[in-house]
Amino acid sequence: MKDLEKKILSAGQVLPGNILLVDSFLNQGLDVELIDAMAETWYRYFESEPITKVMTIEASGIAIAALVAKKFSVPALFAKKYDTLNLTSDRHQSSVYSYTKKKEYTIAVSKRLLTEEDHVLIVDDFLANGCALRGLIDLVESANASIGGVGIAIEKSFQKGPELIRATGVNLCSLAKIASLEDGQIEFAEADA
Amino acid sequence: MKDLEKKILSAGQVLPGNILLVDSFLNQGLDVELIDAMAETWYRYFESEPITKVMTIEASGIAIAALVAKKFSVPALFAKKYDTLNLTSDRHQSSVYSYTKKKEYTIAVSKRLLTEEDHVLIVDDFLANGCALRGLIDLVESANASIGGVGIAIEKSFQKGPELIRATGVNLCSLAKIASLEDGQIEFAEADA
Repeated sequence: MKDLEKKILSAGQVLPGNILLVDSFLNQGLDVELIDAMAETWYRYFESEPITKVMTIEASGIAIAALVAKKFSVPALFAKKYDTLNLTSDRHQSSVYSYTKKKEYTIAVSKRLLTEEDHVLIVDDFLANGCALRGLIDLVESANASIGGVGIAIEKSFQKGPELIRATGVNLCSLAKIASLEDGQIEFAEADA
Repeated sequence: MKDLEKKILSAGQVLPGNILLVDSFLNQGLDVELIDAMAETWYRYFESEPITKVMTIEASGIAIAALVAKKFSVPALFAKKYDTLNLTSDRHQSSVYSYTKKKEYTIAVSKRLLTEEDHVLIVDDFLANGCALRGLIDLVESANASIGGVGIAIEKSFQKGPELIRATGVNLCSLAKIASLEDGQIEFAEADA
């Protein structure tokens, strides 16, 4: 998606360690006009899927999920993160390893809010190692719900997540694909939409 | 706002300790049609204010902020929560006491994203003790920005926050006011819009 790529080039910052900082428009600061245009792009891409819920993980996926859910006229839903969480019978849970924080955490969603009737579109801001996304897919599978697709704003194509997720057969639509951040230069691969 | 009150009555759950659970439509599960109608109500209420940014705190305020910001055609912004955070020169910071978690945490926002040019509409899902809201007001004041108003989905009028905030002269618009949750019964006071 050209508008997203342009925004990444004009407002993104490359930090040491292959980090792309987009806090001025995608997390913390939210360019809602841009996110709404992204939502429209995913809507057209996944329009044929009978989506019943748009799901993400707190916190930076929430604005995206809300604007995408609006396009599909369905509810949004976000998984919560917990440092520690006892197993309870009323929540679907999964463990996620954070490479950024170098620790494992639990994500969970109420069983009342995600059921086998659901056909879910998962959205998130980033896909790098794919740990958070695999956790979300895990929650959907625990609920015996089905996955209509995955919409990612920015995938780091040089990390292992995108390939691992595509290998499972999930329909993944990334709006910007970063091929490389070497020497502080942002290079894109061709996006899915 | 009648539609919000109706939804609270039909889908809210009163738990012991004066807790009103609205996770099926306002936090975790998000009824984006309802939240969009709430956003429209605040837009009409605060229309005369030259709002430049809609600000909230992670996580459950984010969907609200995104949909409100869309109405005003301005960016949204959310403060992040930290268990511990070193003082740094590039962030506005404030301390917030959580009665739910019985501990203090830090909220912060990048100085790049909130400046003295800003006229801010603060929004959040709940107002009870007012600690989180006072933290947000603190951040706006640290930035020498001005406050155009505060939009709250559900205020617990029987707790001290709403009165404290109104006493400061801030223009507070609560869309549902809970007068009492005693004996598991939800009683409303007249809302601001």
